[in-house]
Amino acid sequence: SLSVSLCLSLSLSVSLSVSLSVSLSVSLSEKSVSSKSTPTDLVTEADQQVEDLIISTLRERFPSHRFIGEESSAAGEKCVLTDNPTWIIDPIDGTCNFVHSFPMVAVSIGFAVKKELEFGVIYHCFDGTLYTARRGHGAFCNGVRLQVSKEKDMSKALILTEIGAKRDPNTLDIFLGNMKKLLSAPVHGVRIIGSSTLALCHIASGAAEAYYQYGLHCWDIAAAAVIIREAGGCVIDTTGGPLDLMSRRVVAAGSQEIADYVVQQLQPISYGRDDHDP
Amino acid sequence: SLSVSLCLSLSLSVSLSVSLSVSLSVSLSEKSVSSKSTPTDLVTEADQQVEDLIISTLRERFPSHRFIGEESSAAGEKCVLTDNPTWIIDPIDGTCNFVHSFPMVAVSIGFAVKKELEFGVIYHCFDGTLYTARRGHGAFCNGVRLQVSKEKDMSKALILTEIGAKRDPNTLDIFLGNMKKLLSAPVHGVRIIGSSTLALCHIASGAAEAYYQYGLHCWDIAAAAVIIREAGGCVIDTTGGPLDLMSRRVVAAGSQEIADYVVQQLQPISYGRDDHDP
Repeated sequence: SLSVSLCLSLSLSVSLSVSLSVSLSVSLSEKSVSSKSTPTDLVTEADQQVEDLIISTLRERFPSHRFIGEESSAAGEKCVLTDNPTWIIDPIDGTCNFVHSFPMVAVSIGFAVKKELEFGVIYHCFDGTLYTARRGHGAFCNGVRLQVSKEKDMSKALILTEIGAKRDPNTLDIFLGNMKKLLSAPVHGVRIIGSSTLALCHIASGAAEAYYQYGLHCWDIAAAAVIIREAGGCVIDTTGGPLDLMSRRVVAAGSQEIADYVVQQLQPISYGRDDHDP
Repeated sequence: SLSVSLCLSLSLSVSLSVSLSVSLSVSLSEKSVSSKSTPTDLVTEADQQVEDLIISTLRERFPSHRFIGEESSAAGEKCVLTDNPTWIIDPIDGTCNFVHSFPMVAVSIGFAVKKELEFGVIYHCFDGTLYTARRGHGAFCNGVRLQVSKEKDMSKALILTEIGAKRDPNTLDIFLGNMKKLLSAPVHGVRIIGSSTLALCHIASGAAEAYYQYGLHCWDIAAAAVIIREAGGCVIDTTGGPLDLMSRRVVAAGSQEIADYVVQQLQPISYGRDDHDP
């Protein structure tokens, strides 16, 4: 059974103050699983339920705010970031893990104003750790300040990535080719844990030096980007340019040097954009 | 800082009863890291300290027993399983994770008599979960009975593996080729968490359907094999035959069907044997 409990207490310059509590128990038999874009792009009823719960709670408190959510987007809502205050929500990141009760599952909520990411909250549903950050005010895990790794030697780096939903032979060849390049760098190791947001939290906490992925979404990056930057790290595009939240690709690292090195190794995988019509 | 605390209370037919407590705090600055067989085969002073502590504690209680340990073997002790009661110990599984404070690190202790694995204990150092099993008496996680996954459809399977210490281009090609075959099966996903013993515990708990690896050691398999079998799963050789504890390769799965399927996909990687001279 999954229990989600979120408590956001944030005080922004606009004097925004939120207290959100979500409690949800889902037994294994209730995990009605179906697939979305591809057979490996899974969704459960719980994904929809958690997103509905989060959005309805926030909408009551902030009726003028906008929402971008994984399940709302899957249901056809446009995924466009405007200047309006916008909540960017992944109700269950690591849905495949969740289906298997593989204990790496998170809820991710980011908040942007004038297209600038202001704060992020990521809750690890299995062990209860809560990652939080507000722009200019530092990043924390259960209240303890986070600091990225200062390692600049690639041969001592631990690298994280995720496979993505596309599994055609050509995509797999590029994905595995990128992994081979990094393993040959050499690096200490590559890990695939099945949750982009928790992997990104490991960059913020300094437990790994870099993360890269093609095929993730804005709701996987939004909260984590604030958390990593506030922990002293960088979050950029896979081409080395500034992060484009809607581009479905990212490189995050403890240092610019490590990020640049990863960028140089990567052959791109095209997944389109979040803000284009499906 | 890492804190290891193990409490084994086991009552065997030989009326063996052990209470072992290991407490160890290692601050990050104390993690003096060096490498063994290859630059990516890491070892820290903590590995040696934990193994010394475990073996000296057990030897005092059981002076006639034999010990096979990762660090003793690295120091040149022969790694041969006899009919004598033998403790098989991995003091820190996931040493690379430990070096990075990536939170997947375990202590693994197995026990064999007349070459038969009798019990196993695996302790997850970061979240404190303790996996235990005794032959014929079930497998448990923190006292709760474990049961492997009953899924027999490969397209719904979550597969775990580890990269291994060899990173030459040919080995990487075979490793990534095996991953591609499984991802193309298709399966739900492949995960690499950096700890063989904890990955094997996920097979026991039903959080994943299969695990395969070339290049692990008898101390990675010994405890986990008892735990998985007592949870209803199978642990076999990568050729489909019976497990050879010293062969440095394994397939573990919730069901024989899934194990057989994985076996058919794998191209072997040769790592030699644990019981041959180095």
